[in-house]
Amino acid sequence: MQTIRVELRERAYPIHIGKGILDEVSLYAPHLRDGRAAIVSNAVVAPLYLKRLQGALTSAGANAISIVVEDGEQAKDWRTLDRVFDALLDARCDRQTVIVALGGGVIGDLAGFAAAVYQRGIAFIQVPTTLLAQVDSSVGGKTAINHPRGKNMIGAFHQPRAVISDVATLDTLPVRELRAGLAEVIKHGLALDVKFAEWLEANVERLLARDPEALTYAVQRSCELKAQVVAADEHETDQRALLNFGHTFGHAIETGLGYGTWLHGEAVAAGMVMAAELSARNGMIDQIALGRIRDLVSRAGLPVAGPDMSPDRYLELMAIDKKVARGRIRFVVLEGIGRSLLRADLDERKVREAISAATSAAAAAPH
Amino acid sequence: MQTIRVELRERAYPIHIGKGILDEVSLYAPHLRDGRAAIVSNAVVAPLYLKRLQGALTSAGANAISIVVEDGEQAKDWRTLDRVFDALLDARCDRQTVIVALGGGVIGDLAGFAAAVYQRGIAFIQVPTTLLAQVDSSVGGKTAINHPRGKNMIGAFHQPRAVISDVATLDTLPVRELRAGLAEVIKHGLALDVKFAEWLEANVERLLARDPEALTYAVQRSCELKAQVVAADEHETDQRALLNFGHTFGHAIETGLGYGTWLHGEAVAAGMVMAAELSARNGMIDQIALGRIRDLVSRAGLPVAGPDMSPDRYLELMAIDKKVARGRIRFVVLEGIGRSLLRADLDERKVREAISAATSAAAAAPH
Repeated sequence: MQTIRVELRERAYPIHIGKGILDEVSLYAPHLRDGRAAIVSNAVVAPLYLKRLQGALTSAGANAISIVVEDGEQAKDWRTLDRVFDALLDARCDRQTVIVALGGGVIGDLAGFAAAVYQRGIAFIQVPTTLLAQVDSSVGGKTAINHPRGKNMIGAFHQPRAVISDVATLDTLPVRELRAGLAEVIKHGLALDVKFAEWLEANVERLLARDPEALTYAVQRSCELKAQVVAADEHETDQRALLNFGHTFGHAIETGLGYGTWLHGEAVAAGMVMAAELSARNGMIDQIALGRIRDLVSRAGLPVAGPDMSPDRYLELMAIDKKVARGRIRFVVLEGIGRSLLRADLDERKVREAISAATSAAAAAPH
Repeated sequence: MQTIRVELRERAYPIHIGKGILDEVSLYAPHLRDGRAAIVSNAVVAPLYLKRLQGALTSAGANAISIVVEDGEQAKDWRTLDRVFDALLDARCDRQTVIVALGGGVIGDLAGFAAAVYQRGIAFIQVPTTLLAQVDSSVGGKTAINHPRGKNMIGAFHQPRAVISDVATLDTLPVRELRAGLAEVIKHGLALDVKFAEWLEANVERLLARDPEALTYAVQRSCELKAQVVAADEHETDQRALLNFGHTFGHAIETGLGYGTWLHGEAVAAGMVMAAELSARNGMIDQIALGRIRDLVSRAGLPVAGPDMSPDRYLELMAIDKKVARGRIRFVVLEGIGRSLLRADLDERKVREAISAATSAAAAAPH
């Protein structure tokens, strides 16, 4: 088992990564208070892991209730959140209760936000069961639900007490979700670490074959990179914004098509190619780098072009994204593989050209 | 103008108190970012002060939109909060937007919680226009909305950038609301400061006559006392819990009767007498102190007994209050006027006796 520590002073917390650690009692025991826990999971993950987790919490001395919501991005809404509150209040959960989020990024965001605002904030533990959640959403304390007019519009920064990432849970992950998780792994390499990007170019097929050693390293290195950024900049100003590489275009894709048509990782994959295209058109990277990026995304089985919406539509969708500062859209662009920066001064014409070059009617339906 | 500073390290903020300062441009200018502000107010307060405030913000260089919600406690719900989000998104408000809460405690709680979670947190300024909000809810960073099963169940700690308390706005406050605000002023004296309690015994009639000098001192001293507690203990563990004197019973009254039947301050007033009765029955204060407390509350025109619900009903309502730790109800009790403490070990029989002694069918309808 590997343990990474996210350094956030009094909110510092460990991320444990290993095979079969989902029901390791000693990882939960230090974080339970007064023996009350509430597991939040969904209808797909609960049948696979809920009993094992509940057993571990019982062994750690906790009385754990479970709250099972429906699967999918549409569960990240106020209605589902309110059902979580109802269940917590029904069970008379007080401020000592620890919420345990068992599932992917949606469950982490939903349960984490519930923990952030239930009785003005209670503790929570993340047990991510998808690659996406293990490498991305479980690190950094971002929690949120969606608003009909925008993704993650309502949320809070709320750090977990611990993250327990069992890579064995990835064995049962549908291949489409595995690939979507790889998009965020690739993002960490492209935006932050050229050596990791090169390791991914050499190992992407091992990851797709679910080689446990390769997966463990990919999760670990992703968490390390993200944890460094988060520790330096907890509340997302400029440095943390680099983690949004591919996300400005990606969110436009998700919002434009309706949440859930493309997976988040698929939208980010196409968004990274669009951002790389934008970087190339501003003379920041050359055609060779652009080709390597497109190639890596493609080998991971991910879309290399956005869906066929007009540049106007993309711009309109991006203008209500959170990364708008002072009315101008800020883009995370590359000045090399592994070197990203934030620019709010890019010529809109170049943005339109990049969108036109990196969208395709054929890109409409990943599977 | 008096200025108190709430010491919370990087979240420290000033409270300005004075007559006619509502539209003092220099108090707003330092907190505006990129010239965008959103005033949240209600249908009663907006006609009185919105234009003046908007004028001040315009003079400070901001483009201020306004969001006017309905008046009353029922506006502290998710539906109204969602209307605030809709308006912010309609106006394309980004993370640089500053929310200005213009109104009483409901507006402060609602607009503050909106600021706490909109795009994971934006800045806000409080402009409280009721005595209750000036002495209590504008200090300490507590924000929340109600859940059908409990008051303030969903919320966040989110500190304002500044509080601007114009005591001139109290001139138009209905007398019932003035009295309700006095309940929290009295609470600060009874729970924390015997000298202030004695000052109140000498000056309660001046406060009811809206003597501006007396009001200014009452607001200032209340804010100082609360700010000291908050600075020592931002996230409400034991010390901050002392500010809940009268609130455990008070919330039971509000929930039991339905929000809005009694004003919050009226429920707290009766709750303080019930808590004093409980203190006396545990031998912590004598009958003379109990009589002085009942007398002060009565002279302020506030109820000295709770509504006629059974002890069982009170206990049931209190068990879902947030101040329940480890399944036991914790009470803030007095060991003297100005000296409060937290007890979770009180005999339930004594609690029932205190409830019976301090409830009355005649207490059902303040006006």
